Amino acid sequence: MTNGIAPRFAAVDWGTSSFRIWLCGAKGEVIAERRSGEGMTHARDNGFGNILDAHLADMAAPNDLNVVVCGMAGARQGWVEAGYIDCPAPLHHLADRATPVAHPTRDIRILPGVAQRDPQHPDVIRGEETQLLGLLAHDVASVVVMPGTHSKWARMDGSTLTSFSTHMTGELFQALTSATLLKHAVEGATGPTDHAAFTAGVREIFETPAAWSSRLFEIRGRQLLFGASADGAKARISGILIGAELASGLAGASQQQPVRILSTGGLADLYGKACDALDLPFLIEDADAATLRGLHAAATRIWP
Amino acid sequence: MTNGIAPRFAAVDWGTSSFRIWLCGAKGEVIAERRSGEGMTHARDNGFGNILDAHLADMAAPNDLNVVVCGMAGARQGWVEAGYIDCPAPLHHLADRATPVAHPTRDIRILPGVAQRDPQHPDVIRGEETQLLGLLAHDVASVVVMPGTHSKWARMDGSTLTSFSTHMTGELFQALTSATLLKHAVEGATGPTDHAAFTAGVREIFETPAAWSSRLFEIRGRQLLFGASADGAKARISGILIGAELASGLAGASQQQPVRILSTGGLADLYGKACDALDLPFLIEDADAATLRGLHAAATRIWP
Repeated sequence: MTNGIAPRFAAVDWGTSSFRIWLCGAKGEVIAERRSGEGMTHARDNGFGNILDAHLADMAAPNDLNVVVCGMAGARQGWVEAGYIDCPAPLHHLADRATPVAHPTRDIRILPGVAQRDPQHPDVIRGEETQLLGLLAHDVASVVVMPGTHSKWARMDGSTLTSFSTHMTGELFQALTSATLLKHAVEGATGPTDHAAFTAGVREIFETPAAWSSRLFEIRGRQLLFGASADGAKARISGILIGAELASGLAGASQQQPVRILSTGGLADLYGKACDALDLPFLIEDADAATLRGLHAAATRIWP
Repeated sequence: MTNGIAPRFAAVDWGTSSFRIWLCGAKGEVIAERRSGEGMTHARDNGFGNILDAHLADMAAPNDLNVVVCGMAGARQGWVEAGYIDCPAPLHHLADRATPVAHPTRDIRILPGVAQRDPQHPDVIRGEETQLLGLLAHDVASVVVMPGTHSKWARMDGSTLTSFSTHMTGELFQALTSATLLKHAVEGATGPTDHAAFTAGVREIFETPAAWSSRLFEIRGRQLLFGASADGAKARISGILIGAELASGLAGASQQQPVRILSTGGLADLYGKACDALDLPFLIEDADAATLRGLHAAATRIWP
């Protein structure tokens, strides 16, 4: 299983509904990896330690291999609460403030999340901070978006996370198309994304972001008065939500710096298309690779 | 039933889920009235004509009494499709373009809705235009809000409806508190509206209306980091949605003119509180009374 190379540490990304583990060499090179659905929700019933030990045994890892963990395993309702570091957060503090987990043979550390204790903009992240750590090696100010059910926008200054915000884009898309009258507007949508409708939605809401609620309702009017299709309606809802997210996430930021889209799979493409619609420069970076690099950076600092 | 005064016409407000009828004298004075749950949805199964005739018979109305109807009875899926007049819409056209309904003894007219066939902002109303007709007798430009599941904002210039928009405020409140993670934030909310949280929500979103999605998500952070209550969360969601609606509905309008809140019951009070939070002048006008005045104005023009 280990290709004859001795692993130096195991890296674990333990989310709410997913589990991912890598055995890594000294330079962070991957010797073996596994993923499963044994996320926090599953592990609370079955034991975090049991699940981790079973995977490590199956991968023929040494009994004393160090393990660094990020994600929801460190939540209050997870394995061992790993707390938060405060924003603005120098990201090397993640390794310094990692919480040890008692284990008979291994040194296991769970990285903390980040809390933004601003009374005007209270928010927390857990997992994304490790992706950001993996994205470093820049000295410049940058804006990073991590699209998803709850999209995260981060502002970085060198290796410090200065602020972040969460946009309920993915969840709102679901709620709007299942629990409001827009359900009827998208009924029967089957085709690929209607690119023209998506682009129109992105542009119109970026111009007038305050008007999101009426822009959404007009989708129904567009069908009633102009015969717009269900595919068009679905793409336009998506465009309006992502365009609104870009307008808010980029407020006050330099639009010369590329937006760094940190994602794996189809969402990166969709956010890239939204940036294109607005002539905004962007870079797509792989989220899984960033997580692994972040865990490696932390492991190197904890066990130099 | 008719107090000895001879009715001159019957006025009907026939909505999706409600039916309301008034017998009126020559000056629009109410001789008798009834309301029921026999809205369009019910009437499609039971016959619009049967329901109307039964109520008129119970009210001892003459067989040849004229009837003017507004609302969803004129929708395509209603009794007889009454079409739309186009925006900008001089509201006396509502009476001129009313659609007759065949009946053995009565002259029945259904008022049209209004369509805004702007390719950028397509929208339709059906029912609210009659409330606006009942609000006339002004020569000044004004902004009217009709709060609800789908709040309508209308811009009037004298007796002409120049434009309108729909905000999904009531429906979004329901969807957010039942189909997103904010469901957990409001769990156990039982108290009266938390006025401070409502006001804070209105003010913060009016300042930064583009940031609605992250302002909503911060409600969770506010509980996690600052122990905010479920009642506070519920009030803040309401404040954010209504404040965003005000920001968008009033965009470009003079803030010297009072906002006219056309509503019956608790929503008028809530929208008034939101205006107070922003130091915006407002007037509350009763929506039921406006509907009746609008139907009377139409009846007077149809049967002078």
